[in-house]
Amino acid sequence: MTTVTIDDIRRARERILGPIVQTPLLPAFALQGADDNAVWIKAESLQRTGSFKARGAYNAVAGLDPEQRRRGVITYSSGNHGQAVAFAAHELGVRAVVVMPEDAVPLKVELTRQWGAEIQFAGHTSLDRQERAMELVQRHGYVVIPPFDDPRIIAGQGTAGIEIVEQLPDVDAVVVPVGGGGLISGIATALKSLRPEALVIGVEPEGAADARDSLARGSLVTWDRIDTVADGLRTSRVGELNFAAIQRYVDSIVTVPEDAILRTVGALARAMKIVVEPSGAVAPAAVLGGYTGLSKKRIAAVASGGNVDPQRFVDCLKPDPVAAEA
Amino acid sequence: MTTVTIDDIRRARERILGPIVQTPLLPAFALQGADDNAVWIKAESLQRTGSFKARGAYNAVAGLDPEQRRRGVITYSSGNHGQAVAFAAHELGVRAVVVMPEDAVPLKVELTRQWGAEIQFAGHTSLDRQERAMELVQRHGYVVIPPFDDPRIIAGQGTAGIEIVEQLPDVDAVVVPVGGGGLISGIATALKSLRPEALVIGVEPEGAADARDSLARGSLVTWDRIDTVADGLRTSRVGELNFAAIQRYVDSIVTVPEDAILRTVGALARAMKIVVEPSGAVAPAAVLGGYTGLSKKRIAAVASGGNVDPQRFVDCLKPDPVAAEA
Repeated sequence: MTTVTIDDIRRARERILGPIVQTPLLPAFALQGADDNAVWIKAESLQRTGSFKARGAYNAVAGLDPEQRRRGVITYSSGNHGQAVAFAAHELGVRAVVVMPEDAVPLKVELTRQWGAEIQFAGHTSLDRQERAMELVQRHGYVVIPPFDDPRIIAGQGTAGIEIVEQLPDVDAVVVPVGGGGLISGIATALKSLRPEALVIGVEPEGAADARDSLARGSLVTWDRIDTVADGLRTSRVGELNFAAIQRYVDSIVTVPEDAILRTVGALARAMKIVVEPSGAVAPAAVLGGYTGLSKKRIAAVASGGNVDPQRFVDCLKPDPVAAEA
Repeated sequence: MTTVTIDDIRRARERILGPIVQTPLLPAFALQGADDNAVWIKAESLQRTGSFKARGAYNAVAGLDPEQRRRGVITYSSGNHGQAVAFAAHELGVRAVVVMPEDAVPLKVELTRQWGAEIQFAGHTSLDRQERAMELVQRHGYVVIPPFDDPRIIAGQGTAGIEIVEQLPDVDAVVVPVGGGGLISGIATALKSLRPEALVIGVEPEGAADARDSLARGSLVTWDRIDTVADGLRTSRVGELNFAAIQRYVDSIVTVPEDAILRTVGALARAMKIVVEPSGAVAPAAVLGGYTGLSKKRIAAVASGGNVDPQRFVDCLKPDPVAAEA
């Protein structure tokens, strides 16, 4: 198993500079919770393609050799990773195929297609999509760019961790959402190398807390039933490489309820003037709602993306988004 | 008449550093228009209190001597300047009174009051508010912090211009909304000193184009009827100090139609994940809609604020905000 190091992340950063932007770390003055923490939001919603996924995807595609680039790349995703791979391939002049579910959200299909990617539709489940992708790899020789369980992806996502330490050198804790685990693996690897005294805390929705269970048990746990509004965090278990990094570097994983996620989407728009998707609101929700157990700390919470469904976003702007949801 | 210089703006910057944040200059990759311009958004919506007004207000209050601070400050505003003065006074431990119209938006009253300011209600017009403010000054000796026609305010707003040049040293043009003229006066003064070859272009809504007319005629023009959704730009004429700076430093003033403003609020939320109020969308609308006449330039457009009425914002998120408005 290939372990990602801070040097891999530093090389990734050199590679992605330019097409990938350094996102701002926004002071959350208007949103301080009751715990006397000072909070900053690492706004990955302002990243190219609207999420942190562009970091890892660009690092992976840019790292291909000329022969691999000629073959083209493929990935399977209904969400931000598909769009990120399409973007990276477009920027680097590489052909891209994205396998999406037959019932994919039209807007996400459109956003992926606008980068020139070929869309293939396959069934409804994640397994359907992976199978179709493997078929296409067999037939056409595409290079697979997996969504999270991959050292190039982890190193790319970790560049956000280097930026946080540069932007807030005396950070006490970094709070990160956990889906497949690529983002937290990369960020934790960077943090524990550059500022080992800082805590790294993962956050999952209560309805998708497989990583919390895995960390508690010391081995990978799969959740058969995932139920959360945070569509980017609906993976049923974290990747193997990611789990190794989480075990080594992550201090704890906490959960947040659905209503806190929806209310935080609304609060971030009203008080901080940023558009964040439910998955992106999970870490800020944990900090602002007091779910991390921290107090009197300088905390960076990662808002991982901003690609929210327009109607969902409008509902979150209502005085009581939870009632709107019901 | 006191002329503001780059040294005044530099001193203002020293004074405001800390409480006032350096706002990000966001690359508008997802929003390039048809003119081959490269566009960045100076996101003053992410400033403390949600607008650039905090810069000037803080500079003005922080510059008071101890005796003036003891007297307390007063201003008249139904919008962002009132909130900004309340914020600055709160941070500096100074008493603040804000005179607002009797029919002020409850949310704006609440946001101003949350900084500990005393609210006085007076009539419905700007004149009613100024008269009440003068009465209170006579009686209590408060120091007036005017909204735009004041060298301390202009110097404070100009700090955004210094930041733009630092963030994009080879900027070709800076595009700025014009209401009372404080923001564009300050930014133009900074730009023409630090990078004289860069153009400074003002933008007004078609329904409030008094500054364009003033610049064309060479003397201050007052518009009796102002009609625009951009509530922060409803001043019927620019200030005298501001007009002198505009005549000296601003290259041109263009206008944008109402529908372009509303559509740009929606586009900035969807494509750039930022919440901007109609007044804040005016300069981006001019650049993206091709109203500036620029092409193949590196342009910074100032999004001046994000304090949008929630229902208005929701309407702008609809596929056709103009129909929603009608």
